[in-house]
Amino acid sequence: MTGSAALLTDRYELTMVDAALQSGTAERESVFEAFARRLPEGRRYGVVAGTGRMLQLITEYRFDDPELEWLRANEVVRPATLDWLADYRFSGDIWGYREGEAYFPGSPLVTVQGSFAEAVVLETLILSVLNYDSAVASAAARMSSVALGRPLAEMGSRRTNERSAIAAARAAYIAGFDATSNLEAGRTWGVPTMGTAAHAFTLLHDSEADAFRAQVEAMGPDTTLLVDTYDIERGVATAIEVAGTGLGAVRIDSGDLPTVVADVRRQLDELGAVDTRITVTSDLDEFLIAALSGSPVDAFGVGTRVATGSGHPAAGMVYKLVARRDDAGAWVDVAKSSAQKVSVGGRKHAVRRLDGTRTAREEVVIVDAGEAAPGESGADAAEATEAAGRSQTERDLVVPLMRAGVPDERWLGPDGTRLAREQRAAAMQELPIEAFRLGAGEAAIPTTYR
Amino acid sequence: MTGSAALLTDRYELTMVDAALQSGTAERESVFEAFARRLPEGRRYGVVAGTGRMLQLITEYRFDDPELEWLRANEVVRPATLDWLADYRFSGDIWGYREGEAYFPGSPLVTVQGSFAEAVVLETLILSVLNYDSAVASAAARMSSVALGRPLAEMGSRRTNERSAIAAARAAYIAGFDATSNLEAGRTWGVPTMGTAAHAFTLLHDSEADAFRAQVEAMGPDTTLLVDTYDIERGVATAIEVAGTGLGAVRIDSGDLPTVVADVRRQLDELGAVDTRITVTSDLDEFLIAALSGSPVDAFGVGTRVATGSGHPAAGMVYKLVARRDDAGAWVDVAKSSAQKVSVGGRKHAVRRLDGTRTAREEVVIVDAGEAAPGESGADAAEATEAAGRSQTERDLVVPLMRAGVPDERWLGPDGTRLAREQRAAAMQELPIEAFRLGAGEAAIPTTYR
Repeated sequence: MTGSAALLTDRYELTMVDAALQSGTAERESVFEAFARRLPEGRRYGVVAGTGRMLQLITEYRFDDPELEWLRANEVVRPATLDWLADYRFSGDIWGYREGEAYFPGSPLVTVQGSFAEAVVLETLILSVLNYDSAVASAAARMSSVALGRPLAEMGSRRTNERSAIAAARAAYIAGFDATSNLEAGRTWGVPTMGTAAHAFTLLHDSEADAFRAQVEAMGPDTTLLVDTYDIERGVATAIEVAGTGLGAVRIDSGDLPTVVADVRRQLDELGAVDTRITVTSDLDEFLIAALSGSPVDAFGVGTRVATGSGHPAAGMVYKLVARRDDAGAWVDVAKSSAQKVSVGGRKHAVRRLDGTRTAREEVVIVDAGEAAPGESGADAAEATEAAGRSQTERDLVVPLMRAGVPDERWLGPDGTRLAREQRAAAMQELPIEAFRLGAGEAAIPTTYR
Repeated sequence: MTGSAALLTDRYELTMVDAALQSGTAERESVFEAFARRLPEGRRYGVVAGTGRMLQLITEYRFDDPELEWLRANEVVRPATLDWLADYRFSGDIWGYREGEAYFPGSPLVTVQGSFAEAVVLETLILSVLNYDSAVASAAARMSSVALGRPLAEMGSRRTNERSAIAAARAAYIAGFDATSNLEAGRTWGVPTMGTAAHAFTLLHDSEADAFRAQVEAMGPDTTLLVDTYDIERGVATAIEVAGTGLGAVRIDSGDLPTVVADVRRQLDELGAVDTRITVTSDLDEFLIAALSGSPVDAFGVGTRVATGSGHPAAGMVYKLVARRDDAGAWVDVAKSSAQKVSVGGRKHAVRRLDGTRTAREEVVIVDAGEAAPGESGADAAEATEAAGRSQTERDLVVPLMRAGVPDERWLGPDGTRLAREQRAAAMQELPIEAFRLGAGEAAIPTTYR
């Protein structure tokens, strides 16, 4: 990579700016909305992730000389448009769901208000971040909900693009994973990192015992030894011989896990290693984790399936112009209206209706909130309903994320990542029990438009 | 992102180095191999992609002060290991399949030879690149093979991580796509870029005619107008009214495509716009492209399904230690041997056996090539067979990619990307016709070990 992130975008975002600047429509104040028309096939809920990364990327979004020069040389836009791009800084407002929030079809996840030109330029970047991160978080949340409190580690870096891997580790952490193998995610986002050794380390040595000795000498007996390179039973025996009964954990990466795990637990107990934990890491997904709910597994490592969204590698979010001013300054709601992919025009906010047990019952999308910014009138509505009695409440879902180009700092960096993880935990508490069924089905709560 | 790419790796790669340095095994000369145990479910062949990116990343792989400081502060490895990492430069040899080559289960795609420590450190990075890029290229090649020569554009940037998007555009181009929407892929890899306008541009204007006029003024009548914002028939009529019969193309992004495309072609011809092309871009994949083989479509734009590998977002490649020297300097073949995920130990090279019509019939993996580096004895074998008569030939598949840390420049940058695209075209020519059936089935040719 050379230069800034400005060219992480589709060419048509810039050609639209070019044409709009020429026709005099570029400065029309506009509202764009990112939402998912539907959940991935069979899913009951989604988890919003990427918001903190998105805010950071938008704040830093600049066209520097190398980008401008490349656009000029390739005649992507006219020279006048290059001048406009050179001055580009997003100066508008963004509202949206808190990172870590649950979402449903039609939930207005991100609302961007600014001039048409400054808001349209961000489309590709916003969707790239939200679609990938939310796909990973939505899959990871399902895994987390069936792990029954046992720690989950994300180790899918090798199964996704080298830079996606960082985002995947962060999204999985937000969705309830406890650690990652990815060191850059540790550095950039503060996600705890883990990992000890692979089969190659055992094969490098003249014997399994040599390898285990080398590892214990370097990492201490509290390490995790990988015991399935040759024969698991022999591997476990050797591990305890070498490390003693204080060995931290054994890792199993192959075999029929329910059987193998039970055998290894029995063997460890017989050897007196009653506190030695068992970690499993063999092509796991939410279904295999659930199938191990009765097994004495102490921790799970998940690779491919979490980093690729467990069958749904993109969350399917779109970014649509829903309102813009006309020349007289009046707001006009807009939406595509031909046969398919119809959208609901108008600025929106949203509340989640909770019953007396604080269980979510309905996603209410309030259309055409008019001049009131999302998250402002909504808060009042929620309080008013709550004051009327504890039987039902409406929780406001849309909060300000950026004001006049300045992001809400709370969502940025490692602190923002932790905040998103807390938000996800709170949002999961509210979902009805049907949301956690792994089998295919409808969204756990209906979305209605008010 | 701050700093170098050194932390795009799993923690255990560094803890293995740490333990091996301490136990004295780190310098054992080793051979690692990247391969796929199987093709993704139902696929007939795969396309290798990412090699050029991988060589570049390996060449630049360095631990700079910020990375070393983070590793120190987080106690990932011992101080002595930090010194080793500070001096890290890969100085070994790499052989592998040419980028763009077809591959099958067990094909030795990349072979890395160096000290254990210097080769193991690259595992995560090599697999991240190969697994994602090859997943995209393998899906894109299927789309390319059913497009019957009509141009394909990759436009999936918004459906994958913002940095993956660049790699996806490159991989799709290698696999036969003609252009991408992604500007950074244009800048970094020389992939032609395309794109004009989205529905938002039409909705921004007071009428569809206003929007089309603005676009034609900015981009000229040879542009592509998106005609399905309101009503397609009206959109086509307006497009020709505004741009004239010299309009470059209309784009259709929704509706029942075979019907809609036929209607639009008829309408364009009746209006005299006989040279105006029709581009379709509505949630396409290889099956929908094939279903349009009889329709008057002139170009396809593919998004989600190409950038996410059309159901298989990771190619499933692994990186295994297959041989290493012992203390006496003798080579020892090694492989995991417990119940599952068994590997074939030993250094390998490979040839593709072709019949008299130069159609591929067998992938021959030659195990334990001994001291001879892959790609050296293989070349001789191929020539000898060819000299014996034209009835069968064996084409050598493994070539040197890096010698003593210096990459073969031909595979780097935009030139390397073009070379890979040519290689892919040549490899496709050789595949038996069964390889191009879209339905699920076995690998098109068997892999045998010699």
